[in-house]
Amino acid sequence: MKQAALGIDIGGTNTVMGLVDKDGLVIKETSIPTKTHPDYTIYMNSLCDAIQNLVDTYKSQFEIIGIGVGAPNGNYYNGTIEFAPNLKFEGIVPVVDYLKKSFDFPYIILTNDANAAAIGEMIYGGAKGMKDFIMITLGTGVGSGIVVNGEMVYGHDGFAGEIGHTIFDPNGRDCGCGRKGCLETYTSAPGLKRTVFELLSVMVDPSELRGISFNDLSALQIDKAARNGDAIALEAFEYTGEVLGIKLADAVAHTSPEAIFLFGGLAQAGDLIFEPVKRNLEDNLLNIYKNKVKVLPSELPPGEAAVLGASALVWKEFGV
Amino acid sequence: MKQAALGIDIGGTNTVMGLVDKDGLVIKETSIPTKTHPDYTIYMNSLCDAIQNLVDTYKSQFEIIGIGVGAPNGNYYNGTIEFAPNLKFEGIVPVVDYLKKSFDFPYIILTNDANAAAIGEMIYGGAKGMKDFIMITLGTGVGSGIVVNGEMVYGHDGFAGEIGHTIFDPNGRDCGCGRKGCLETYTSAPGLKRTVFELLSVMVDPSELRGISFNDLSALQIDKAARNGDAIALEAFEYTGEVLGIKLADAVAHTSPEAIFLFGGLAQAGDLIFEPVKRNLEDNLLNIYKNKVKVLPSELPPGEAAVLGASALVWKEFGV
Repeated sequence: MKQAALGIDIGGTNTVMGLVDKDGLVIKETSIPTKTHPDYTIYMNSLCDAIQNLVDTYKSQFEIIGIGVGAPNGNYYNGTIEFAPNLKFEGIVPVVDYLKKSFDFPYIILTNDANAAAIGEMIYGGAKGMKDFIMITLGTGVGSGIVVNGEMVYGHDGFAGEIGHTIFDPNGRDCGCGRKGCLETYTSAPGLKRTVFELLSVMVDPSELRGISFNDLSALQIDKAARNGDAIALEAFEYTGEVLGIKLADAVAHTSPEAIFLFGGLAQAGDLIFEPVKRNLEDNLLNIYKNKVKVLPSELPPGEAAVLGASALVWKEFGV
Repeated sequence: MKQAALGIDIGGTNTVMGLVDKDGLVIKETSIPTKTHPDYTIYMNSLCDAIQNLVDTYKSQFEIIGIGVGAPNGNYYNGTIEFAPNLKFEGIVPVVDYLKKSFDFPYIILTNDANAAAIGEMIYGGAKGMKDFIMITLGTGVGSGIVVNGEMVYGHDGFAGEIGHTIFDPNGRDCGCGRKGCLETYTSAPGLKRTVFELLSVMVDPSELRGISFNDLSALQIDKAARNGDAIALEAFEYTGEVLGIKLADAVAHTSPEAIFLFGGLAQAGDLIFEPVKRNLEDNLLNIYKNKVKVLPSELPPGEAAVLGASALVWKEFGV
């Protein structure tokens, strides 16, 4: 019987789950709302029910070898979600323990969503065969997964790889984490918007963005304006690339990766973001690292990436 | 027969070598000048002669299992020293290949001097039993060695772990590496001196350091002045700790270590440097990392640390 793994991505709004085979083919995808109730047991029961439905439907065709879960603030060692700011659950959610009560698959694994994306890239995407790389997810926040010598870096507590919360400017923008100047406040989708508003105050160029309120402005509108040659929008991408390039140069000085993959909404902007990131990264790299580090778009299909990444957790442990 | 390893530390002025047993006992230490001649073959021949002398003297008492070499810009994968700014050799010095022509020990290994110090800490010092830690060497420069899951992080090119060249301020102090604002320009011994001179210009407090020229001022004098309550010297240590604390918070966000060890001249300043580093590190850590990361003095004896670290390279591969 063919083998398959369940990949589950727990997001702030929805939890998407899919049955994935070893080659990365998503056999079936489904989703449930991520309950916003502070009591996680109600959510976990719905999740288990949804998984059971998938299992019942496919167990005659596939040997299901495990469940991989990607979640914000996911802790690999404990199998828990701990104090995730974007989820409504209070405290620590023991996801893996809960799943183990209902399912006896050989592998039930949870990690941070950006780590899951990194493992997805390694198993199914552009990082196949790479031993040292970094995944950067540029979305509502900035996440990262660091791979060293073929293994995910988890650190002593399971929380390694928060490059989005390295500090670009100790006196800089307020961050949701309570500190100031984190990379995330500059290079996430909301960070790009904040940069536009800073530039609207600094520059005098006319801009189609001057007619849009902070609440209404989206990263997609900035992208569109930039493609129309809007000076503010273009400068916003340039500055975003500068900040990201500088901080990625620091990341290279830590683990010296072969490549850095950019993933998520902002990475869809293509050259608008890749060109300034590459240029500023090279300009800020220590000599010994220059002209060595590739900056690449993720090769995971955007719609399936989260589920693929989560299922890849299982294939990685299984030993693909 | 008892086993021993040769540890060799190649410094700008001298090359120190020692025969070390598995417990970290230095049986014999000796040194040769590191030739400043651009042609490395003359130096390598003297080095081989000195090693041969040690081997001849001790081969009846010890089974020598290998040679470990720590050197600036040492590359673990290639066994080379590559374009080291503090050494006079031109280009790439194939140290390991050269040694292998003269000696047939099972292990002949070279790495960056800060990596060697990290492995020394892991085998003989305070990092025994730790799987995730960072070694920071605060001397003429700032070096680092990063250990993840019990293994040295070398990266795809063998040059990982240059936290001294992460950027504190993109518009900051000129660095020997050709860039601006590297951590090293603030938290090395010369960095502390530069901070004193900046503070002498900014502050109006009387200071015993106002009578000493830039060329004459040493880190030891600043240390002494601080212990006498000198306001400038105290503020210089405070600022050094602030910069180091901020950048170590970034390092934690990469690999989430259990501990950070400080080693080298500046670490000898004790609480003058440890107190502000710890405080500023905690202040700048992302929530999930707070109150978890120990900042500790190296437990390697300062006089023997380099040779111990180099010999530890052999014991690590040997599997102590």
